[in-house]
Amino acid sequence: MEKIKSVIHEEPTLTDPILVEGLPGVGNVGKLAAEHLLDQLKAVKLADIYSVHFPPQVVLDDDGVAKLVNNEVYYSKSEDGSRPDLLIVVGDFQGLTPEGQYDISDYLLQMAMKYNVKRIYTLGGYGVGKILDDPRVLGAATSLELVEEMKEKGVIFSKGEPGSGIVGASGLLLGLGKIYGMDAVCLMGETSGYFVDPKGAEAVLRILSSLLNVEIDFTDLESKAEQIDAIASKLKEMETPQLDEAPPEDLRYIG
Amino acid sequence: MEKIKSVIHEEPTLTDPILVEGLPGVGNVGKLAAEHLLDQLKAVKLADIYSVHFPPQVVLDDDGVAKLVNNEVYYSKSEDGSRPDLLIVVGDFQGLTPEGQYDISDYLLQMAMKYNVKRIYTLGGYGVGKILDDPRVLGAATSLELVEEMKEKGVIFSKGEPGSGIVGASGLLLGLGKIYGMDAVCLMGETSGYFVDPKGAEAVLRILSSLLNVEIDFTDLESKAEQIDAIASKLKEMETPQLDEAPPEDLRYIG
Amino acid sequence: MEKIKSVIHEEPTLTDPILVEGLPGVGNVGKLAAEHLLDQLKAVKLADIYSVHFPPQVVLDDDGVAKLVNNEVYYSKSEDGSRPDLLIVVGDFQGLTPEGQYDISDYLLQMAMKYNVKRIYTLGGYGVGKILDDPRVLGAATSLELVEEMKEKGVIFSKGEPGSGIVGASGLLLGLGKIYGMDAVCLMGETSGYFVDPKGAEAVLRILSSLLNVEIDFTDLESKAEQIDAIASKLKEMETPQLDEAPPEDLRYIG
Amino acid sequence: MEKIKSVIHEEPTLTDPILVEGLPGVGNVGKLAAEHLLDQLKAVKLADIYSVHFPPQVVLDDDGVAKLVNNEVYYSKSEDGSRPDLLIVVGDFQGLTPEGQYDISDYLLQMAMKYNVKRIYTLGGYGVGKILDDPRVLGAATSLELVEEMKEKGVIFSKGEPGSGIVGASGLLLGLGKIYGMDAVCLMGETSGYFVDPKGAEAVLRILSSLLNVEIDFTDLESKAEQIDAIASKLKEMETPQLDEAPPEDLRYIG
Repeated sequence: MEKIKSVIHEEPTLTDPILVEGLPGVGNVGKLAAEHLLDQLKAVKLADIYSVHFPPQVVLDDDGVAKLVNNEVYYSKSEDGSRPDLLIVVGDFQGLTPEGQYDISDYLLQMAMKYNVKRIYTLGGYGVGKILDDPRVLGAATSLELVEEMKEKGVIFSKGEPGSGIVGASGLLLGLGKIYGMDAVCLMGETSGYFVDPKGAEAVLRILSSLLNVEIDFTDLESKAEQIDAIASKLKEMETPQLDEAPPEDLRYIG
Repeated sequence: MEKIKSVIHEEPTLTDPILVEGLPGVGNVGKLAAEHLLDQLKAVKLADIYSVHFPPQVVLDDDGVAKLVNNEVYYSKSEDGSRPDLLIVVGDFQGLTPEGQYDISDYLLQMAMKYNVKRIYTLGGYGVGKILDDPRVLGAATSLELVEEMKEKGVIFSKGEPGSGIVGASGLLLGLGKIYGMDAVCLMGETSGYFVDPKGAEAVLRILSSLLNVEIDFTDLESKAEQIDAIASKLKEMETPQLDEAPPEDLRYIG
Repeated sequence: MEKIKSVIHEEPTLTDPILVEGLPGVGNVGKLAAEHLLDQLKAVKLADIYSVHFPPQVVLDDDGVAKLVNNEVYYSKSEDGSRPDLLIVVGDFQGLTPEGQYDISDYLLQMAMKYNVKRIYTLGGYGVGKILDDPRVLGAATSLELVEEMKEKGVIFSKGEPGSGIVGASGLLLGLGKIYGMDAVCLMGETSGYFVDPKGAEAVLRILSSLLNVEIDFTDLESKAEQIDAIASKLKEMETPQLDEAPPEDLRYIG
Repeated sequence: MEKIKSVIHEEPTLTDPILVEGLPGVGNVGKLAAEHLLDQLKAVKLADIYSVHFPPQVVLDDDGVAKLVNNEVYYSKSEDGSRPDLLIVVGDFQGLTPEGQYDISDYLLQMAMKYNVKRIYTLGGYGVGKILDDPRVLGAATSLELVEEMKEKGVIFSKGEPGSGIVGASGLLLGLGKIYGMDAVCLMGETSGYFVDPKGAEAVLRILSSLLNVEIDFTDLESKAEQIDAIASKLKEMETPQLDEAPPEDLRYIG
């Protein structure tokens, strides 16, 4: 079997679209943010991407219908040119091995180049080991000019954070994209690393909506965040003091 | 060496055969069921499938004659057209890696397409962590129509079961088969997950025999089940109370 | 880099040579036996086989000269036709992964076929978990006729031994060799599994010398065996009673 | 994606350059030494080498600009012919798997052959498990003649050190280089294995500067060594007596 197999559903005409990626990772911040963006924009599925680098697994919907695990590419055309066209990548899993990670990110970039993508935003979480009321959004970018541009939008660039760099698709799309001549930015919402974190996703998406000039209704994310907060509060009442301590070293990277 | 190497023993002419798969997994439910079906139908070996994705190992028969571990494809022609022709896949092992799992399932599907297979039944176990007198048969399928068809035959579709989806060949043949346009159903017999489970295999096979319109003598499986029951009873007498508790999370998937 | 890279030193003309393999494994029985045979026959190096499937490592000789780890193929021509010509495979390591094991064994068989090899003897150890004064030599073969032939030479075929089959090159050369139409026998010397075991190697080699009609001086192996016996006796005196107990399950296979 | 992807920045004309390699390993001795050499010679970057065999990761500079992890090849031309031209390999990581190690070392050697490299020096550390005031430099080489030549320069060749051979790029460039007909030497600076070790790097570089006839200012390395010494002394005061004991077996190899 070929290592990556895609099923193309549509071949839209897009004008210099921006690629947005949000796959599973720390706090699932990137995945939540990208999926919320996709819902808000009523984006349309362009391709299913299957790979031997994903787990050999089907997932079931509530009716019992099986779907092979995959990544999915959606698109959203601007109706009036007030914002850029978008390609949005979401999915069940990231590649299971380093080689798989590279293969899949490279595949996505080849597809992006076909659509003349010149800029990429990758979304992720930055595990800080404590629950924050007001998570910052940290950044990394492929050039100093981009760093300056992002600082003006409120993205924090903090020396030594994240110290170990950025692991996974959110990092590779920057690293490989840079080699292919694309501008790319990683937006990382602070998150405890203990829970799925809609609050971190909202922080990331507030920056991204400004960058993309799209309006987003955050009601759904906010109500999810309240549910998580309620759970976290209960856990605090049960006096598990380690919640405010540093997480294990290996949670300190980005998904 | 090529990743998969097959030795073809026969090239029968079959009419739209149905593919049945039963490889090792939880409780070896699928393997027991497929092997019993194969014995009952006196199915004939069509191909041996060897692969670098299997363990580098030979197994010995009682005389000391060695055989490289493999998967095997058998066929059974309907004598009078009262039931469909069948291809049956059994074997010693599943692929050792995710990539191996994908490669082998894809190879089986390529072979299936050559024989014009349009429907697949994969057989497996669903580990529930306790010994059941009357195991249910849970299902998953590639379309809502198939789900409805299976419900009429007594297959249970239960939201959130199995929660983690279906891992291995029984899942991949559905997921990849769906992409290739085949109808596929996974039948999962409930099993404790602690023993090889002929009772779970019998439950699966009772549904399958109805689906395939074949008559099956269950005497052998039933006597094997009694032996296992006897062992289980003794263990219960020895008061190992954890037998009725939930199994570790990672036993809750399908082989 | 190609997965396997060989450097051919000679291309001798051999008459239907028999292939003998002895690579590292339980008790290093096969390796010791093949290396002793090679020394006794003053066999000549035919090829060095390097592979990405071996560890990324050089070993040093006593002078500090480095050699990339490898497998080596030697040959020995019969001077007077009283015994068959031989190809002998020895080496530092076996392939590190299942796929590596398959690739290397297949590569050796392709080379064997070029020299018209029709019969293979693979040498290994069978871990029994206790120190034996008089180790048996167990066998496995590719056909019932070969099993009968070997029994006449004193090889033991014991139902269920080894229960888990034969793992590694000693198994694969049988399994793959059988597919390629070669006769192959695995000779396994019983060994504790705790020490490098020259006594097990001698037992294997006594059978093999009879099969090949070669005379072998066992002095070296016997003096090595005495050294190991001395060490083992001292350990027994120190009362480590577990020495006579069964080894962990995973030592019960063949290297 | 191809397994190794390089970006060539310059294609200099070099006269029989010598290849020097220093990648991460025990005490980072080789990496520190090669990077110091590179700084001292103001070497110029020739190529970036990216690979699926490296971690799927970007690292960030102090400004937040991301770079895909890689190996880098620099060159330095002799201005007056008083010393050889050089190619210097440094990097963030070594290949993550054995196959990756082989692929990358082979790739470097193919590049070296294009530039007519006939001699290689690989730099590494030899973990001895205690802090030494005056670390020795141990050697390994591809021929006895080279061993003799190195002994005259003060390199120690000590039978059985390192006992397990040399693992990683520093070993493979010798082993594969030898097959390709290149002369190669590994210089290993003794190091505790507990710290990044500029003192070990200085010892290696003092030998190498004599071999290459280059003058090197060691001030930077010496001040780094003093910092590490200060830390080590403090730890000693805190009475952690195990600092002088042998390290775990698996620290005893070369990076």
